[in-house]
Amino acid sequence: MAHAVELYDTTLRDGTQAENFNLSVEDKIRITVALDKLGIDYIEGGWPGSNPMSVEYFNKMQSIKLNHAKLAAFGSTRHLKNSPEDDPNLQALIAAKTPAITIFGKSWDIHVHEALRIELEDNLRIIRETLAYLRPRVDHLFYDAEHFFDGFKHNEEYALLTLESAIEGGAETLVLCDTNGGTLPHELSPIIHRVQHYFADKDIKVTLGIHAHNDSESAVANSLLAVADAKVNQVQGTINGFGERCGNANLTSIIPALVFKLGMECEVRKHIDRLYSTSRYVNELANLPHNRYQPYVGESAFAHKGGIHVSAVKHNPLTYEHIQPDRVGNIRRILISDQSGRSNILHKAKQWNLKLSPDDPVLPTIIAKLKELENLGYQYEGAEASFELLMRKALGLKRNYFEFESFRVMNHKYRMDKPPLTEATIRLFVGGREVHTAAMGDGPVNALDTAIRKALTRFYPCLEKMELADYKVRVLSGEKGTEARVRVLVESRDEQCTWGTVGVSVNIIEASWQALVDSINYKLLKDLDP
Amino acid sequence: MAHAVELYDTTLRDGTQAENFNLSVEDKIRITVALDKLGIDYIEGGWPGSNPMSVEYFNKMQSIKLNHAKLAAFGSTRHLKNSPEDDPNLQALIAAKTPAITIFGKSWDIHVHEALRIELEDNLRIIRETLAYLRPRVDHLFYDAEHFFDGFKHNEEYALLTLESAIEGGAETLVLCDTNGGTLPHELSPIIHRVQHYFADKDIKVTLGIHAHNDSESAVANSLLAVADAKVNQVQGTINGFGERCGNANLTSIIPALVFKLGMECEVRKHIDRLYSTSRYVNELANLPHNRYQPYVGESAFAHKGGIHVSAVKHNPLTYEHIQPDRVGNIRRILISDQSGRSNILHKAKQWNLKLSPDDPVLPTIIAKLKELENLGYQYEGAEASFELLMRKALGLKRNYFEFESFRVMNHKYRMDKPPLTEATIRLFVGGREVHTAAMGDGPVNALDTAIRKALTRFYPCLEKMELADYKVRVLSGEKGTEARVRVLVESRDEQCTWGTVGVSVNIIEASWQALVDSINYKLLKDLDP
Repeated sequence: MAHAVELYDTTLRDGTQAENFNLSVEDKIRITVALDKLGIDYIEGGWPGSNPMSVEYFNKMQSIKLNHAKLAAFGSTRHLKNSPEDDPNLQALIAAKTPAITIFGKSWDIHVHEALRIELEDNLRIIRETLAYLRPRVDHLFYDAEHFFDGFKHNEEYALLTLESAIEGGAETLVLCDTNGGTLPHELSPIIHRVQHYFADKDIKVTLGIHAHNDSESAVANSLLAVADAKVNQVQGTINGFGERCGNANLTSIIPALVFKLGMECEVRKHIDRLYSTSRYVNELANLPHNRYQPYVGESAFAHKGGIHVSAVKHNPLTYEHIQPDRVGNIRRILISDQSGRSNILHKAKQWNLKLSPDDPVLPTIIAKLKELENLGYQYEGAEASFELLMRKALGLKRNYFEFESFRVMNHKYRMDKPPLTEATIRLFVGGREVHTAAMGDGPVNALDTAIRKALTRFYPCLEKMELADYKVRVLSGEKGTEARVRVLVESRDEQCTWGTVGVSVNIIEASWQALVDSINYKLLKDLDP
Repeated sequence: MAHAVELYDTTLRDGTQAENFNLSVEDKIRITVALDKLGIDYIEGGWPGSNPMSVEYFNKMQSIKLNHAKLAAFGSTRHLKNSPEDDPNLQALIAAKTPAITIFGKSWDIHVHEALRIELEDNLRIIRETLAYLRPRVDHLFYDAEHFFDGFKHNEEYALLTLESAIEGGAETLVLCDTNGGTLPHELSPIIHRVQHYFADKDIKVTLGIHAHNDSESAVANSLLAVADAKVNQVQGTINGFGERCGNANLTSIIPALVFKLGMECEVRKHIDRLYSTSRYVNELANLPHNRYQPYVGESAFAHKGGIHVSAVKHNPLTYEHIQPDRVGNIRRILISDQSGRSNILHKAKQWNLKLSPDDPVLPTIIAKLKELENLGYQYEGAEASFELLMRKALGLKRNYFEFESFRVMNHKYRMDKPPLTEATIRLFVGGREVHTAAMGDGPVNALDTAIRKALTRFYPCLEKMELADYKVRVLSGEKGTEARVRVLVESRDEQCTWGTVGVSVNIIEASWQALVDSINYKLLKDLDP
């Protein structure tokens, strides 16, 4: 059954149509690199003709080399009144200088009349002419047939003509889009088969793709049916299924089915153990919580409660797991046992050159401390420096570089149209010497950060080389409103490396303080006691 | 195509296997009543043989009359060593006094050997004998064939024999379970068709059902394929798809497809406009957030961003919506986003009863202001109250309920192991009278929130009825570390409704202040100047 399938990711374009899913240009570049490492074949970076942020993204991507993935720029057919040379949308696509361009056009007669407000014949013409103009100007040219399934149901003959125009224009793959997401799985393959017969009867060779939306909670299933039943060659989707309304087809569920269950040949097969971390990474950058019930990559996806399940799954995982969790970089969680904790800690100790044997009496103490902190909301993914400091403390290896005495942070707002004035003072001791400093800041955390550096830099000049690269705040659910706990993640860097630290408190200043202090301690440990 | 389909809900039994989804007996009774009102045919209340809470639930349900739904008790086949009369599990099922009983048994030879540790023949015997014993003692008797699809793939002959034993025992419907959720949609119908042919060849009449899990993100699609392609007569699932690991088949997506798209006859057709509220109600009782991207019943399910979409959907909803939102009790939302233009703003003005015509000179001012604020990082998705206040201000309709003078927020940390003490003071004027108050808080924002309410509540007692439901912080990228701007989104609620407000600043206290002040102003506007 296996044939080659191309994976086409549109997280950065269609994905960002999702409510609350917002990415900066820098975030988009980071995600592009992560998708390339995962083995995605095409990465749709944006619609340069409609969005200035996309132009900036494509400009910056010129200087970034990808290993395998090819970038795609997305845009519409030209405006009927413009020649291709004068159409700003098409010119923006060419200016993006990507190896691939994807053009979407209308398949549904209603949309030609009501959205484009042009004649049906004219729509066929702009599809054909847009593609023909671009064909010699780009390596790969794809055609997204918007609303194809709805169009086909309403006016089969016309929908097929739009596809034929795209082939005449030179499209390499015709991607059938279920734009409104209303197509049910039993309808899908028969329609694709009719498209295939239509072109076979005319002796025209076509390569097809699928682009599904999740409004009927069938986007993943429809994509898999298109591959398994209708043998399409390209699947479009997004990481974690982000997209307009209910989302696009979720690649984190499609990829493992293609690789492990359908045996498809694709680059992503080589890197599929990165699936879990890639999924989390996208959520972290968008500052959105991870869906614990998400297939394959959710925390609950391989979690086992009930006693019978647990003993059966330990004896033979096949009994209650459809695939092995580590194949996608996830882990099995037996909800009562601490098995996973031990091996993880021993693994980390080895990595950090800390002496810790499996029967060390300190090990249970570390596990217990870790469980307690995790229950409070601490999370060490992305904050490994805090975790290393915690282990060193438990092993009696942590040095105190300074003694804290007290700090104050004051915010004074006296004009409605200006932000508050913010001042921080800090008092601490280094080697018995008192230091008492003050600093202003843009906000309370910035003022505190500035004051503590001012206090310590005269004793530890290496702190001058360290800067905060990123600062993230997440409100932990469970409590209400402003009484909820927050988790602060700080990423710091110097000339050699970057490291992450974490703090948790009901008080955002306290949580930030914990992460800042860990960050400074880690820098001093690294430079002074390596 | 339409045939009759029974809907069988197992939210209260299989649903509660989901991590973090916990229901008290009282919650379960409330949900039972809500499911009955929705028109569900069978409600599986629990497994009385394995869970004392289920026994209590079934006892209490004796005194509650349902309009349409029939209660089902769930349990396993008898233990091989027990006679039915001595089997505590079977006796607990009978004691539950429900009109329906569902027995699950093993279909997969591996499980017979490894979990039950009995011979294959003995498993057939306990299936047959368990059902035969119960048949005269209950109105409706169902058989859940656990792991049926996996069992069929490994040992087709044996899996079919288990079903045949269930029919010999007197089961009215055989429910084929994809217990591990690994079955892909293209595999499902061919297997069900082979079951149907097997019994047709033997001239045995069977009624089939489907029970799918979501580990391949295909549970809804598999359930719909079983109905549309394989004509099964019972669909089992849970509200919002709660269930072990990645969940069960989601009834909130299955029901509208059955009713609106497949034209099935079922009681739920009469009450389907309760779908949205039922879905939310279950989340509320379980104290879990509603998934905004959930098909049909999510907040984003009928939300439209992009300008082209918005004008098209207003002209003809069919163009970008697969069904009309009010048919399931949901609403269409036109989002205010950076792609927003004139038509979005005019639509909102109409919704809020603000006089604004397309040629009003204020309109370009509002658009310009909005763009400026959006460039600064303001975002009005989820903060519509702030947007309404902004429009009212532009139209000269905003009343000042108080005059701000100044505030201070102070944080004092004097012990390493304790969070800082936090105090806020605020000075303002209401109708010329000075108010100067102070309050402590868990953190700086909480202290400020408490102080401002303390100051205003004596003048505006309605503020007592308002509370903060959610508080979100997002660091906007672009700047480094603690100098970055933050966006604060606050969700407030009173007894009638909820509303969202936004603030942006480099200073988190300032950003929170803006969102808090908008929230209070909106509450006062709503109550005092409606």
